[in-house]
Amino acid sequence: MQKPKYHVFVCSSSRVTGQQKGYCFSKDSVSVIQKFMEEIEEREMGGDILVTNTGCLGICSKGPVVIVYPDGVWYKEVTVDDVSEIVEEHLENGRVVSRLEIK
Amino acid sequence: MQKPKYHVFVCSSSRVTGQQKGYCFSKDSVSVIQKFMEEIEEREMGGDILVTNTGCLGICSKGPVVIVYPDGVWYKEVTVDDVSEIVEEHLENGRVVSRLEIK
Repeated sequence: MQKPKYHVFVCSSSRVTGQQKGYCFSKDSVSVIQKFMEEIEEREMGGDILVTNTGCLGICSKGPVVIVYPDGVWYKEVTVDDVSEIVEEHLENGRVVSRLEIK
Repeated sequence: MQKPKYHVFVCSSSRVTGQQKGYCFSKDSVSVIQKFMEEIEEREMGGDILVTNTGCLGICSKGPVVIVYPDGVWYKEVTVDDVSEIVEEHLENGRVVSRLEIK
């Protein structure tokens, strides 16, 4: 299989019971996921980038949380308006978006 | 924050709509997640390893799918019986479990 260059995980508070009522979900993380998918499609990066929703990542107070692997960079309080910057800076140009990074 | 040494993602077919009816879910991936959590707790590796459930990873026919980052190793058809081997070999000793790896 062709592995992604970057794998973007976005917390959608998905529980294994099927419930979705966690913090990231309540802060509109589903729209953040959709925005990532739109940006990646528009920039024709679909072959290199995979976007996946997740269950709770354990630091709810900093949500919505986004992680970019293999870099292991965690981003906090990501809104729809932040997504194009993460895509352009990090995923296209390999530069971490410091203002959103969880250090 | 303290980042995990290994971040284990297990597909639980969690959809952003809250539905859970995908392939990995139907193949008992929730038990795989629970087994990872049990093994990690028993071995007192909770400070180093994070386990997270995910939505669909796109290769359903190979499910349940498990990914270990930052290594970027993808495992296929993981059952409850495979979990202790992945924990002991990969997460404790850094050796990929070749028989389960998606190449």
